[in-house]
Amino acid sequence: MDVYSRFPGPTLGDVGEAAAIRELLAAAPSGLNGDDAAVLGVLAPSSRPVITTDALVSGRHFRLDWSEPEEVGVKAVTQNVADIEAMGARPHALVLSLSAPPETPVAVARGIAAGIASEAAEYSAQLVGGDLTTSRDLVLGVSALGALGGALPALTLSGARPGQRLIASGATGRSAAGLALIERLGRNAAEEAFPGLVAAHVAPRLRPNRGIVARAAGASAATDVSDGLVADLSTLAERSGVRVDLEAAAIAPSEEMRAAADELGEDAWRWALTGGEDHVIVAALEGPAPSGFREIGRVGRGSGVTVDGRAPRYAGGWLSL
Amino acid sequence: MDVYSRFPGPTLGDVGEAAAIRELLAAAPSGLNGDDAAVLGVLAPSSRPVITTDALVSGRHFRLDWSEPEEVGVKAVTQNVADIEAMGARPHALVLSLSAPPETPVAVARGIAAGIASEAAEYSAQLVGGDLTTSRDLVLGVSALGALGGALPALTLSGARPGQRLIASGATGRSAAGLALIERLGRNAAEEAFPGLVAAHVAPRLRPNRGIVARAAGASAATDVSDGLVADLSTLAERSGVRVDLEAAAIAPSEEMRAAADELGEDAWRWALTGGEDHVIVAALEGPAPSGFREIGRVGRGSGVTVDGRAPRYAGGWLSL
Repeated sequence: MDVYSRFPGPTLGDVGEAAAIRELLAAAPSGLNGDDAAVLGVLAPSSRPVITTDALVSGRHFRLDWSEPEEVGVKAVTQNVADIEAMGARPHALVLSLSAPPETPVAVARGIAAGIASEAAEYSAQLVGGDLTTSRDLVLGVSALGALGGALPALTLSGARPGQRLIASGATGRSAAGLALIERLGRNAAEEAFPGLVAAHVAPRLRPNRGIVARAAGASAATDVSDGLVADLSTLAERSGVRVDLEAAAIAPSEEMRAAADELGEDAWRWALTGGEDHVIVAALEGPAPSGFREIGRVGRGSGVTVDGRAPRYAGGWLSL
Repeated sequence: MDVYSRFPGPTLGDVGEAAAIRELLAAAPSGLNGDDAAVLGVLAPSSRPVITTDALVSGRHFRLDWSEPEEVGVKAVTQNVADIEAMGARPHALVLSLSAPPETPVAVARGIAAGIASEAAEYSAQLVGGDLTTSRDLVLGVSALGALGGALPALTLSGARPGQRLIASGATGRSAAGLALIERLGRNAAEEAFPGLVAAHVAPRLRPNRGIVARAAGASAATDVSDGLVADLSTLAERSGVRVDLEAAAIAPSEEMRAAADELGEDAWRWALTGGEDHVIVAALEGPAPSGFREIGRVGRGSGVTVDGRAPRYAGGWLSL
């Protein structure tokens, strides 16, 4: 496959499963790996396990002609730990089910595992197990295990209440902007002009522990923005039986995003409102925004999502088969 | 796709992701599902979480012209819980990352989820979360979470000691026999003549909790037979620094397997020694075989695997890309 030509060395099919697994273990070393299953440490007293799974499919969620394998690994970690964080929990361990064509270079598999291991370490988490199978598409199936400590309830989609503030751990639309830039300009030119937006797409990263911080500050609801700000908050509004009122000034595209949009003849607001895969954490709470968050709106009575009291200029999201 | 023609009704692509996910949730209902991640109950005091992942790929690990979707779901559960059981732990929860072509009938996805849910219930476990993505191959990426209670160490590949008995929770080679029968006779004829062997291939099932029982009886090492008896015990022997001496009479193919081999002109011993995916639990302990196990050999000093003191007639296994 063409996309693999820039990765020299043997393929997974060349070396066989046993050697390929050794390479993956070497790229993501963990004392917990290497048996039928991984046994973790006892969770903190009264902690509840939290589990989630999310896959990345080549050609759909990433392209190896645009992204380094390590970046794909980072993206797989972020989309999974974001779901753990969105419950107010702390990520502990990840497992990787890698399905790959036999012609996949070993270097690609190794890079993916190394990217997962290094990004997991940012959360003091580990890649503790995996599985390697053959398929036509390169698919990273990652599952993450976290721990929800203490007696407070988890942050759920249904926990928002009228009167609460809505807070976000970062800006939305940056991944969508990065994707549009790469598609139109190619990665190199896109990166030269807008390195932050390109990074937000190929290897989105969270500031760890925002979920714990939001829960400790009294949040009762949260989600990560995976499908798009309006789409994900519509789900939260529906599940909580509330209306979400966003403040345009607080969610407005940055200057960097507006410059990118100008360059491409796009509207940066579309990215901010409907772009997925930023994985920022949005939570609802009574008090002021805690460290690493800023207020982006309010929770009200009613249903749906508004921006400055009106229907959002763009709706929809990335939810599609 | 031809293989899908026997499943009437709309496809995943027809109904879209949101409706498809609703179908999966309805087929595998769980009060823990439906948020960013699933929050489980507090594990028993001093229990350690145990996690594993294993994927099934269409055309490689199953074929929908041979298997019902529900059976594929059962197989996905068994191969994952077997890894949890092989540590001496109890399965608690599973998550499913389903990658499927858009032309996959909704009925197939629903059947897979239903099969997972019903087999998980055999272990008092639940399917608590999932992810649905598009890819060219149908891939079931399942991860399982278990709990290892008490202070005893986990059953590991490296825990076998000379002098121990080797015990197994069932016979090996039955899945391989079933596969050979289906390949040669077609499912219907194969099933008419050898229903047990066909079932062992399309929907292998374990008697739950054999791992806990072995650990309570003092076992120190275990594995499940996923790649083949000789292959998996070679790994155990190597990791434990011991020799494994199997007793031919105890691992001999059953009359049913010998009849199947006669029919196909095969040697049933090849299936028994090298066939994978039976997922029976093999453990090493000092005392007699506990409930649901029988003795199949001894652990000795040295290295490798013998059968009645000689090199196995067949070695190798299913380990390959």
